[in-house]
Amino acid sequence: MSRAGDVVTAFWTAVDARDWGAVAATLADDVVYVVPQTRERVVGRDAVVRFNAEFPGDWNLSITTLVADDARAATTIRFVLPGEDDQTGIAFFTLDGTGRIARMEDWWPEPYEPPPGREHLVERD
Amino acid sequence: MSRAGDVVTAFWTAVDARDWGAVAATLADDVVYVVPQTRERVVGRDAVVRFNAEFPGDWNLSITTLVADDARAATTIRFVLPGEDDQTGIAFFTLDGTGRIARMEDWWPEPYEPPPGREHLVERD
Repeated sequence: MSRAGDVVTAFWTAVDARDWGAVAATLADDVVYVVPQTRERVVGRDAVVRFNAEFPGDWNLSITTLVADDARAATTIRFVLPGEDDQTGIAFFTLDGTGRIARMEDWWPEPYEPPPGREHLVERD
Repeated sequence: MSRAGDVVTAFWTAVDARDWGAVAATLADDVVYVVPQTRERVVGRDAVVRFNAEFPGDWNLSITTLVADDARAATTIRFVLPGEDDQTGIAFFTLDGTGRIARMEDWWPEPYEPPPGREHLVERD
């Protein structure tokens, strides 16, 4: 696996395990975490660790897709919260020169109804 | 750039140019296009080309992020429709053994308001 693939796998594994020391070890001091859909930005290792540690609920997660080269990675995760529908999270990561995560962009798409007019081309699950 | 990076760049460039012959050349005969948020599935090169060709509006698009290895790629695109807010599309691609797109998974996240309780960690743009 690529370096970024290893680092991102270690990051998500540590988040799922709530091993905040191991999460911190994957992050650059000045990591920037952005949520474009809410226009939120969290800056710095301690704040990013706390953002994850304080996320409410008895959740767990697993990686469902991983694409990576040496310095960048993209993942989908399945995020499971008991009693709620599973969610898919999508993240893009950029590593710094030391192999730590310098930037993470996090996306949470929601189900929607397809627009009319394309039924002749489409099957639905 | 990786092989998948080249193929995916050619795909999006051809879609933006509405060059449907060039789009078709990047796709496997039995390509599967899926939209997990709507549970839609489009199967086969001709149907996938038509799905894109029939998409309404005077849109254009450009690649904003590309992560790829030899056989897989992830992209974000900026999708611009005059008179509407720009949208971000996220896609994951898998190539077949001949270097054509065998599977494309397409996501369209929408803006949302952040949940309360994390303001102490977050800046907003």
